[in-house]
Amino acid sequence: MFGPGKATLLEAIRDTGSIARAGRRMAMSYKRAWTLVEDMNAAFAEPLVLSVRGGAKGGGAELTLAGTAILAHYRAVVAAAAFAGKAHLDAIEAALAQSDGE
Amino acid sequence: MFGPGKATLLEAIRDTGSIARAGRRMAMSYKRAWTLVEDMNAAFAEPLVLSVRGGAKGGGAELTLAGTAILAHYRAVVAAAAFAGKAHLDAIEAALAQSDGE
Repeated sequence: MFGPGKATLLEAIRDTGSIARAGRRMAMSYKRAWTLVEDMNAAFAEPLVLSVRGGAKGGGAELTLAGTAILAHYRAVVAAAAFAGKAHLDAIEAALAQSDGE
Repeated sequence: MFGPGKATLLEAIRDTGSIARAGRRMAMSYKRAWTLVEDMNAAFAEPLVLSVRGGAKGGGAELTLAGTAILAHYRAVVAAAAFAGKAHLDAIEAALAQSDGE
């Protein structure tokens, strides 16, 4: 439902103010970026992205408060998981034949 | 390098005592199961699976101590991540239009 690709797209929309520019930054087609935004807006009780077509500034897009909150929760999940599992991941890494630092 | 598929395969080998039976339990071809075992054994400094061909009992496979340890660390990572991220995952889940319990 919500994963690394959608989170990165939300960040790119927040940073660029545009679904089209966000898609380009991710080397994603405009259609694909729009489809993902529509999926997210439909999946959540409140839309995560607000887009305006045309207008004086040529339209644009921004995150709603809900979008900002979901993005923050997602990044917190990832950070908490990495922190909580670090000792065990280190143990697995140490047992590898060659550690390539990835 | 090591993820849910390989962890489940190790558990199936541990439970069935055989790479072939483990593969069948996972609806995976014998060749695929063997390839994954060979990958794991090559990736770690010590092999994770010990296999014996033929013999009185018709051969079989078991986890080494290293295999048991890596499996335990992996399951601990997953559990720690789920625990650490639960509050945020719950917040994302609560924001969904419909919660399907998945």
